[in-house]
Amino acid sequence: MADQWQNAMDHAVAIAQKAGEVVREALRGDRKVMTKSSSIDLVTQTDQKVEQLIIQSVKERFPAHRFIGEESVAAGEPCDLTDQPTWIIDPIDGTTNFVHAFPFVAVSIGFCVDKKVEFGVVYSCLEDKMFVARRGRGAFCNGEPLKVSDQEDIKRSIVVTEFGSNRDPDAVDRIFSSLRKIVCLPVHGVRSAGTAAINLCLVASGSVEAYYEIGIHVWDIAAGSLMVTEAGGVLLDVEGGDVDLMSRRIVAANNRAVAGQIFRQLDAFSPPRDDALPSHE
Amino acid sequence: MADQWQNAMDHAVAIAQKAGEVVREALRGDRKVMTKSSSIDLVTQTDQKVEQLIIQSVKERFPAHRFIGEESVAAGEPCDLTDQPTWIIDPIDGTTNFVHAFPFVAVSIGFCVDKKVEFGVVYSCLEDKMFVARRGRGAFCNGEPLKVSDQEDIKRSIVVTEFGSNRDPDAVDRIFSSLRKIVCLPVHGVRSAGTAAINLCLVASGSVEAYYEIGIHVWDIAAGSLMVTEAGGVLLDVEGGDVDLMSRRIVAANNRAVAGQIFRQLDAFSPPRDDALPSHE
Repeated sequence: MADQWQNAMDHAVAIAQKAGEVVREALRGDRKVMTKSSSIDLVTQTDQKVEQLIIQSVKERFPAHRFIGEESVAAGEPCDLTDQPTWIIDPIDGTTNFVHAFPFVAVSIGFCVDKKVEFGVVYSCLEDKMFVARRGRGAFCNGEPLKVSDQEDIKRSIVVTEFGSNRDPDAVDRIFSSLRKIVCLPVHGVRSAGTAAINLCLVASGSVEAYYEIGIHVWDIAAGSLMVTEAGGVLLDVEGGDVDLMSRRIVAANNRAVAGQIFRQLDAFSPPRDDALPSHE
Repeated sequence: MADQWQNAMDHAVAIAQKAGEVVREALRGDRKVMTKSSSIDLVTQTDQKVEQLIIQSVKERFPAHRFIGEESVAAGEPCDLTDQPTWIIDPIDGTTNFVHAFPFVAVSIGFCVDKKVEFGVVYSCLEDKMFVARRGRGAFCNGEPLKVSDQEDIKRSIVVTEFGSNRDPDAVDRIFSSLRKIVCLPVHGVRSAGTAAINLCLVASGSVEAYYEIGIHVWDIAAGSLMVTEAGGVLLDVEGGDVDLMSRRIVAANNRAVAGQIFRQLDAFSPPRDDALPSHE
């Protein structure tokens, strides 16, 4: 069967490349920053410009498709995943990194039909690495196939995670107690790159064995989650069940052995779901 | 006055480049790993090969100079900083990253005379970024001058740190309590790249405002520390006094305001000094 979404995927790659050029260009100039909800959660003019660039270009080509975009949701649009073809967009994953010119900044574009991710594109702009996954057909970085690490021992694994922007004391307690248990398993190392999309690509590439986080949003992980499974890895909820992309919780790992060793250390909690945001009520 | 150490610095840059090629070549092939003291602290054949490559090449050119090298000290050589010209070498800073092909791996070469760092070279092999600092003459990345961030507000800062390989419960308690206080200041973000040398270069580049760690060694920080000061930043001990490169403790920041806000959060402790290692007794 021909791949009915090939045109959409080609378009996603082209527009991610173009978006990445805008990001790189912005980093050469001034970075005028305005605060969103707090000093931790930043949004930049570039963020909004890049999301509009992507949405406009997709609308012209695929007028019937729907969108979930980080900036659109922040501006009050619904975060509503139906069975219709839906583009899930994070124009700049790693906005804080972008503001500081920390070298991990990604454009993330996932595409869902019937609530399944059909393809994912993550463009790491500053590294110039284009990650692409197509359901059932593998994951690639700059054309080279990706494969997860074959390590089964958590003690010989690198784990990536983030502290996120939640400073609720109970959440911070759980984030730190989970992290401490993981550090003391012990693992080889813990890293934080500052972007969920690139963290998932690091799992897919075999550079780290696992990534977990509570508090991320669907636009951070839609594209990268397919990268992991198409590279041979697994996704779980932080309590060990099936992953739910709207639940704001994820464990991604190279295999079930490592994923299990991770989720069993985690003190789980449940932030408000992405599809329960006030704009959706 | 002509720069009497220019020849040595040119040599350091050339040999760091060559060492980086060996590192990249090794990442294309197999990575046969053997454990050093624990599963956390890895050493690879490449590590030892690169250190020998650097030391042999410097010895031929500068036969009177002395050396402190991570692998040599691990093999029982003294870690002894005298007033003599001394090359302080970490052949692969970020060995765990190297083993996993995590994208931050550095060759670090510092050069001291009269116990002062005269120049530092940090080559980030996988990014192909050559960082060079010369005392009193600035710091550069691939020829471009480096300048620290001008941010004075810790709440708008990114901080990098590492969990290190110390799993002594009291040390882990202090590492986690310090980190929690910093996360909850709050800061914009916390990152972990997995190499002290590159963390210091990130401060020098303005990509992060501060880096702190307890447990690093002189070969991890000799070169990078000069990168920070020559880019306009400051170094402190974790209790606020002058930094001591042999003390295994460092705070590096873009300015005194940020450095002060960092060290006041830290629950300090004192690992055995580098110059008190058994081989030196």
